[in-house]
Amino acid sequence: MKLNCDLGESFGAWSMGLDNEVMPHIDQANIACGFHAGDPLVMQNTLALAKQFQVSIGAHPSYPDLVGFGRRTMACSSEEIIALIHYQVAALDGMASAQGLSLDYVKPHGALYNDMMREPKVFEAILTALAQYPKTLALMLQATADIESYREQANKFGLVIYSEAFADRCYDDEGRLLARSQSGAVLNKEAMLAQVKQLSQQGTVTTISGKVLKLSVDSLCVHGDNIAGVQAIREIKELLS
Amino acid sequence: MKLNCDLGESFGAWSMGLDNEVMPHIDQANIACGFHAGDPLVMQNTLALAKQFQVSIGAHPSYPDLVGFGRRTMACSSEEIIALIHYQVAALDGMASAQGLSLDYVKPHGALYNDMMREPKVFEAILTALAQYPKTLALMLQATADIESYREQANKFGLVIYSEAFADRCYDDEGRLLARSQSGAVLNKEAMLAQVKQLSQQGTVTTISGKVLKLSVDSLCVHGDNIAGVQAIREIKELLS
Amino acid sequence: MKLNCDLGESFGAWSMGLDNEVMPHIDQANIACGFHAGDPLVMQNTLALAKQFQVSIGAHPSYPDLVGFGRRTMACSSEEIIALIHYQVAALDGMASAQGLSLDYVKPHGALYNDMMREPKVFEAILTALAQYPKTLALMLQATADIESYREQANKFGLVIYSEAFADRCYDDEGRLLARSQSGAVLNKEAMLAQVKQLSQQGTVTTISGKVLKLSVDSLCVHGDNIAGVQAIREIKELLS
Amino acid sequence: MKLNCDLGESFGAWSMGLDNEVMPHIDQANIACGFHAGDPLVMQNTLALAKQFQVSIGAHPSYPDLVGFGRRTMACSSEEIIALIHYQVAALDGMASAQGLSLDYVKPHGALYNDMMREPKVFEAILTALAQYPKTLALMLQATADIESYREQANKFGLVIYSEAFADRCYDDEGRLLARSQSGAVLNKEAMLAQVKQLSQQGTVTTISGKVLKLSVDSLCVHGDNIAGVQAIREIKELLS
Repeated sequence: MKLNCDLGESFGAWSMGLDNEVMPHIDQANIACGFHAGDPLVMQNTLALAKQFQVSIGAHPSYPDLVGFGRRTMACSSEEIIALIHYQVAALDGMASAQGLSLDYVKPHGALYNDMMREPKVFEAILTALAQYPKTLALMLQATADIESYREQANKFGLVIYSEAFADRCYDDEGRLLARSQSGAVLNKEAMLAQVKQLSQQGTVTTISGKVLKLSVDSLCVHGDNIAGVQAIREIKELLS
Repeated sequence: MKLNCDLGESFGAWSMGLDNEVMPHIDQANIACGFHAGDPLVMQNTLALAKQFQVSIGAHPSYPDLVGFGRRTMACSSEEIIALIHYQVAALDGMASAQGLSLDYVKPHGALYNDMMREPKVFEAILTALAQYPKTLALMLQATADIESYREQANKFGLVIYSEAFADRCYDDEGRLLARSQSGAVLNKEAMLAQVKQLSQQGTVTTISGKVLKLSVDSLCVHGDNIAGVQAIREIKELLS
Repeated sequence: MKLNCDLGESFGAWSMGLDNEVMPHIDQANIACGFHAGDPLVMQNTLALAKQFQVSIGAHPSYPDLVGFGRRTMACSSEEIIALIHYQVAALDGMASAQGLSLDYVKPHGALYNDMMREPKVFEAILTALAQYPKTLALMLQATADIESYREQANKFGLVIYSEAFADRCYDDEGRLLARSQSGAVLNKEAMLAQVKQLSQQGTVTTISGKVLKLSVDSLCVHGDNIAGVQAIREIKELLS
Repeated sequence: MKLNCDLGESFGAWSMGLDNEVMPHIDQANIACGFHAGDPLVMQNTLALAKQFQVSIGAHPSYPDLVGFGRRTMACSSEEIIALIHYQVAALDGMASAQGLSLDYVKPHGALYNDMMREPKVFEAILTALAQYPKTLALMLQATADIESYREQANKFGLVIYSEAFADRCYDDEGRLLARSQSGAVLNKEAMLAQVKQLSQQGTVTTISGKVLKLSVDSLCVHGDNIAGVQAIREIKELLS
């Protein structure tokens, strides 16, 4: 099970995330492409850092919403979604090539990610965008109870799925995350490490109702926003090795 | 001598330029990349139009200044210029590839173009950006009396130069354009066609002082903003064929 | 019954709308405030034009979506909506004052307008924003069959409502506009003039089902995008005078 | 001698500056207006914080350059500068009024500030903007050896000047700041406190060459980017009281 993390989320004079501390410990870097975070210089520096630690590179495209950090659903048409994914993925792809790196996958960001999981039209637009793209790129999405239906549809487009779980979030019986507003939604460190252990050894999570749910997981999403997050990444890494 | 034109300069709900009327008559389309004009959907549509008429594609990157249309000099550092060129060129390059097209050259836009011609540091940053880019791309710049010095420097970076002249603009003795504010700076149609004829047959222009100046020109920049411009393009095309 | 029109929708180098032709014929100008259209210079020029023809000024605030022209719903929180309305209204208000003009009302634009009509939470956020604003401003919204419920709620916030109807759009039995995608949604000129006449003389519209619906209308929204629109405005003006 | 500080420089998800720690200790808050930093929600919160500690409010307008944080000179025309100052000042002014606050002054930000001090055309555009503005607002600029010439010109426009000095920067004999790139440009804490003391008691600074230069200073610019900056503000405050 790999570790992935959202990186390159600084913008201009604003710094975000402990990228230097996180990069040595992860396998896959989801790099912002300028629409919710990450200007060209930040992207270049983040790619160089990924190169240094031989971390796989994923594009992290978003709705065009800098002030909202891509977290607000926008009613975009399918053709708008296809175009904005092509633009962002291509920008990162070419910048990666300029450093001798190869883009591996795409993980939509924020509201675009949530809309992809929830609305078949958005999911299909994203699949169309990646199928049209001239390089083979995997699509990272959320490991849920019904992930096979996502995988089947992706296969129709000739695309490979990377499924990810969230280390520190409590699941419901459909394998969806509890909303952060609900009590118990975010696990403490002990519970998080237990969930990671269960996921890696049994391929299951215990849901909020106590049910044991099978989850097929390729990668674990971790967070490097602060010192505590970086420390948690280190412990997860150790537990998995 | 080829014809090039700035295209894909619409943005969102705003339309600019008669791209459909211009594309059939030109050889090279300089396509905006989102920083001064051209959103992802506009770029996609412009590429499709270029494909239909088998027109060569050039990236038209700019300073990040949407409201100023990239016409205002910005004091960017060399590393900022390199990064913003990589980003814009890569975005268009990947979107072109998605349509089976191949990017051929880069022509900086507006103030970035003027700064490139005037400031060695900006020219060098642009050459560095293109030399680092993983594909071979030519750089389009202005045919001036001292173009050989530009060409020599580009060659040091392993880059090819496309030199362009302006059909409708009066030249000074250094082969620079007269500022639009000066009287006689913009030629009327008859004078323009005479200048094109002289350029194509003798490889010279007659400057404002009456001097006959040799200009080595690969391409002629034409404008398709309005009906009169499109009509002028047709006549230039006929004259050159 | 007054005439209102969306104006000042140019942006930077991009021109939109025949503002010079429209302004002499209308009573109320809804002026874009920079978030979907209208940069500071455009706003200044539009205010000067309104002053010249003694047209009332309304702020036309939007979601922050330049490339989407404010037409795409964005999932903004109430406090975000309040803040973005304050910002845009204040910017236009102060610029109007600098020309000796006084802002009269606010009409939300595009998706924000539609969300205001459809989602009570958005409507309440907008009322809160205007109630907090230090000047008394009316709120322009759509004249529907249930407009009294909107008016009552506005009154609770101490606000006055301007209700507007659409000259060229067919209504359903709830007094809502038929979606543009539906056949018969947009009236031809003859039908439009008939609808305006009926609205002004009887205060009713005939809906798509043939029902005669009472609509309390303060102002009629007209469009000045092109020559035909300007001509229609002239004929409506004549019919109403 | 008052203390002023640049505040409200967060943007969306990005945080900048220890505003909560700084606000209790200063007299004047220069609040970003959205063009280099500060979105509507950040502006609203910063105004509320200023209200809580009864701090005077200044608008801190900038060139439109979010990714460059307003630090890059842009070749704007006078009318563009006037319009962008009106827009930003008006936005903050109206939002301040909505909280019962009154805007007191304007301090241009970053490259716009430097250009104002260096280029008479930019200074005149800014004076014109403030003179046209419907409320009386002071203009904050740098205390230099030739400040009287700035003050005289401002007086012609009916405007009051607030002059500011920089606590931690070394001066040259013209009363300009040494470029940060030069050795000795930024003072250590001891030297900074000595400079503040000299400024407040004798109204002079000792320049890099050892010359004692008279500076007429209304306010001292301090920085609250980090813990050390906040601690320095506290000590300056104590020294001045």
